[in-house]
Amino acid sequence: MSDTPLPAPLHDALLSLLGPAGLLTDAGDTDAFCTDWRLLYHGRCAAVLRPANTEECAKAVALCAEHGVPMVPQGGNTSMVGGATPDNSGKAVVISTTRMTRILNIDHADLTMTVEAGVTLKAAQDAAWAEDLMLPLSISSEGSADIGGVLATNAGGNNTVRYGNARELALGLEAVLPDGSVLDLMRKLRKDNTGYALRQLLVGSEGTLGIITTAVIQLQPRPRSRETALCAVADAKSALDLFAAFRKQDPAAIQAFEYMSGTSMALVNSLIESCPLPLSEPAPAYALVELGSPRNDDSLRTLMEEVLGQALEDGLVTDAVLAESETQRQNIWMIREEHAEAQKRAGASVKNDVSVPLAAIPDFIAEATKSCEALIPGIRVAPFGHIGDGNIHFNLVQPEGADAKAFLAQDHAMMDTVTDIVRKFGGSFSAEHGVGQLKTYMMPSWRGGAELETMRKIKAALDPHNLMNPGKIFLQG
Amino acid sequence: MSDTPLPAPLHDALLSLLGPAGLLTDAGDTDAFCTDWRLLYHGRCAAVLRPANTEECAKAVALCAEHGVPMVPQGGNTSMVGGATPDNSGKAVVISTTRMTRILNIDHADLTMTVEAGVTLKAAQDAAWAEDLMLPLSISSEGSADIGGVLATNAGGNNTVRYGNARELALGLEAVLPDGSVLDLMRKLRKDNTGYALRQLLVGSEGTLGIITTAVIQLQPRPRSRETALCAVADAKSALDLFAAFRKQDPAAIQAFEYMSGTSMALVNSLIESCPLPLSEPAPAYALVELGSPRNDDSLRTLMEEVLGQALEDGLVTDAVLAESETQRQNIWMIREEHAEAQKRAGASVKNDVSVPLAAIPDFIAEATKSCEALIPGIRVAPFGHIGDGNIHFNLVQPEGADAKAFLAQDHAMMDTVTDIVRKFGGSFSAEHGVGQLKTYMMPSWRGGAELETMRKIKAALDPHNLMNPGKIFLQG
Repeated sequence: MSDTPLPAPLHDALLSLLGPAGLLTDAGDTDAFCTDWRLLYHGRCAAVLRPANTEECAKAVALCAEHGVPMVPQGGNTSMVGGATPDNSGKAVVISTTRMTRILNIDHADLTMTVEAGVTLKAAQDAAWAEDLMLPLSISSEGSADIGGVLATNAGGNNTVRYGNARELALGLEAVLPDGSVLDLMRKLRKDNTGYALRQLLVGSEGTLGIITTAVIQLQPRPRSRETALCAVADAKSALDLFAAFRKQDPAAIQAFEYMSGTSMALVNSLIESCPLPLSEPAPAYALVELGSPRNDDSLRTLMEEVLGQALEDGLVTDAVLAESETQRQNIWMIREEHAEAQKRAGASVKNDVSVPLAAIPDFIAEATKSCEALIPGIRVAPFGHIGDGNIHFNLVQPEGADAKAFLAQDHAMMDTVTDIVRKFGGSFSAEHGVGQLKTYMMPSWRGGAELETMRKIKAALDPHNLMNPGKIFLQG
Repeated sequence: MSDTPLPAPLHDALLSLLGPAGLLTDAGDTDAFCTDWRLLYHGRCAAVLRPANTEECAKAVALCAEHGVPMVPQGGNTSMVGGATPDNSGKAVVISTTRMTRILNIDHADLTMTVEAGVTLKAAQDAAWAEDLMLPLSISSEGSADIGGVLATNAGGNNTVRYGNARELALGLEAVLPDGSVLDLMRKLRKDNTGYALRQLLVGSEGTLGIITTAVIQLQPRPRSRETALCAVADAKSALDLFAAFRKQDPAAIQAFEYMSGTSMALVNSLIESCPLPLSEPAPAYALVELGSPRNDDSLRTLMEEVLGQALEDGLVTDAVLAESETQRQNIWMIREEHAEAQKRAGASVKNDVSVPLAAIPDFIAEATKSCEALIPGIRVAPFGHIGDGNIHFNLVQPEGADAKAFLAQDHAMMDTVTDIVRKFGGSFSAEHGVGQLKTYMMPSWRGGAELETMRKIKAALDPHNLMNPGKIFLQG
C-alpha cells in the first residue's frame, strides 16, 4: 500500500470505476510514477489512476474533486522540469494517460490524425508515415513522451522552425476539467471564430487546467525529397546569416536549422565513437541544415547547392558536407542528437533551455560565454540548439577533472548568470521545457505583474480549490 | 453633447488626460462610432475616447473602470457582426485606437514588424512590402481594418490556407486589461513556454478581455514568383481534389485556393462590367489557385503546369487560364473580389460565413443548396470562399424580381437551414467574422456546456464587473 491511503469511500468508488488495472496503490507499482525522468524529484502519491478512456477519466476526476484530492496528470513522464511528479505529501493521486492509446482516425482529406492522449509521439509519427503523411513534431523523448504530455507542455523540437510548436499542430482537443466536466473542442476546423481560444490555452498549461484526453493533430504530406548538410562556420553570426540566406530563398523548405558550438561538437567527436567530425578540420561553430519538400524533383538540391555555393564564396561557410545517402543523413543527425549524451560523459553539466530574438543570438552567446568563463575558470561552455527558432540550449559542462559536486553546487549562480543576459535581450528562461516545479520560483520576477496575475486569475477561476497539478507553474502558498 | 453625458469628474479627468483631440462628446462627432459598418446596429455612447498611446489608454480605462463605465473598444469599425458598436443605453464610451498609428520597428533578422493597434492592415502590409517583406494577411476591409481589430477578431482571409489566421501571426502583444493594467507580452520569441497562452487568448476575444494596443507581427520574405490560375471544374468535389493534388506536391506553395460556384460567378460576369468570364464557356464551379514563392526561378510555373496538366488529363479540371502578366493576375483576382458587390447588385442577400472539415465540403454544399432551394423557390444559392480552409461563404441571393423585404423577413429561417447542416458536419457558424452581438444567441446551443461555461469563468475572472465590451460573445442577463 502507498504510505497515505485514499479515503475508503473514494478508494472503493475508484476501484469500481477503473477496475484493478486502473488503480495502483502498492508502492512497488506507484514508485515509478512518483519520480521524474531526470531524478530530481522523488514524490509520493496515494494512488495511480489509469483510466482507459475519457469517460473513466472524467468520472475519476469528479470523484477526486468531490473528496478534495489533488491530481497530478502524467503522460510518458519525460518532463525536464518535474512537471508530472507529485509532491512529498502523499495526498495526491497521479492520473496516468498511458492506457488511452487508440489512434482513432487518419483523415486524408483534412490531413489530420485523431488520437488519444496516451499514444506516444513516436507511435503517432509512425502511423502517419505509414500512410504517406508526416506528423511534423520531433523531440528526443518521442519514444516515451505521449501526445497528451506533448500538448500539455507545448513541445517544440527540431521542426518548429517550419511547422510551429505543438500548439500550432493541435486542431482539436478534448480535456477533462478540474471539476470532472469534459471540454469538447474536437473540431477539425482551420477557421472557427466562436469565442475564446480555449484549445490554445489548454495546450501548454502543464496539466494545471485539466487533463488532455484526445486531440486532432494537423499532419503534412510526407516529404519525398530531403537535403541535409553540415556546415563549418566562424561563429553564431555566420550561422544566423546562413539561416537568413536560406529563408530568403524558401522559408518553407527549411525543415530544421541547428547550431552547434565548436566546444559541444568537440565533445561529441571525442566521446562518442560513432560520431567523428565529417569535415576536414574542426571549426569554431557548425550549422546543420535540412531542407525538405513533398516534391520529388531536383529543385531542393539546386537550392541547397546555390545557397551553400554563394555562402562559401562569401566566406560565410568555410567548409560543408552534403549527405549523399540516407545513411549519411542519419550520421549527420546522430552528431546533433548525441550532444546530450556526450555532455553527460564529460561530467556534470547545467542545462539552460533559453530563447532570445534571432537578432540577439550572437551577442547573447558571446556575453554569456564570457560571463560563465569568468564565474568558473575552465568551464566548458557548450551551447547548441534550434538557432532558427532563437532557442539555444546553453549548456555548461564542468572543467575537466574538476569535482562534479562542487561544480553543481554553483548551479544557481550559473543559471542566474545566463538568464540575466537572456532577460537583457528580451528572451525566455524556458523555451521548450516549461516551468513545472523546477522553475516556479522564476515566474514572479520574469512574468510578474499583470501577466502572472492574469494567469493566477484564470487558474483560480477554472480550478478554485487548486486540485489540478498543484505546485506547477505557480509558486505555492 | 451626447445624450447621456459622462459623470462630470470622469469627464474632467478624461479631458485632462486625453486633451480635446482625444475626447469626443458631441453627437455629430460620436455618431459615426456608434453605427456599425453593415448598418445593422445604431447605438449610442457617452463619449468617444481616442488615446494617443498605451499609457493614455491604460489611464483612461482605469478611470472608466473606477466610475463603472462600460467600454467598447473599436478599431477600423469594420466588424461584420456588430462587434465594435455600443448598445442603446448611451452609458458606454467607445475607446478608439485610431490615433495609435505608429509603425515602431521592422526587424529583418527576426522578420517581424512592431506596430501600434491603430495602423491599418493595408498600411502595415505596404510598410512590409516596401522593405522586401510580406505581412501575409489579406482581407477585403484591409484599407480600414486596423491591426488591433484584426487581432481582436482573429481575422482570416485569402492567405490563411498558407500562413494561418491572425492569431498565428501575432508573435508579441500588449493589451490594456479591464482594470487599466497593462499586459506586456511584447516578446519576439518563437519558443517560450513560461505559463499560459495569454497572447493567443487575447487574440480573438473580440475586445471582451481587454484592448490590444501594440503587437509584434510575424512577416515573411516577399514572394518573387507567383502563378495564378482560374480553373473550370465540375463541382466542389473536383475543386477539393485539385486542392489535394497541389497540396500533395507542395503545400507551402499554395498562397490561396478559392472556390466559386457557377451561380456566384455568373452574377459577377453579368453584373460587373469589368469582369467577364476569361474562359470559353461557363462551368458548374471554379477554383482560383495562386502559388507563390520567394524563389525567383521557374519551378512554380513547372509545378502549376504539371498539376493542372494532370488534372485536365484526369478530367478534374475542364478548362483553365493561367495569368501571363500581373494585369491578368489582377483581373482574375478581381473576379473573386467582386463577388460581394455582384451579389449586392443582384438584390437582397443573406450571408453565412461558415466552415466545415474539408472532407465534408461537397456534401455540405449539396445538402445546403437543396434545402435552401426547397425553402425559397427561385432563390439563388451562390456559395464561394476559402475552400482550402473549409471556409465557405454560403450566401443566398433573393429570387430575381422578388420582393427584397419579404425575402429578408425569412433570414433566420435561411440561416438556420444552413447552420443546421453545418452543425451536422461538425462545422462552425462563424468561421471568420466572430460572434459580436449578431450571433451571441447562437453560442449557448453551439458552444454550450463546459465550453461556454469555461469562457464565462475566464470573462468573469478578468472582467468581474463586465465593463469591457459587454454584450459581445456572451448573451447578457
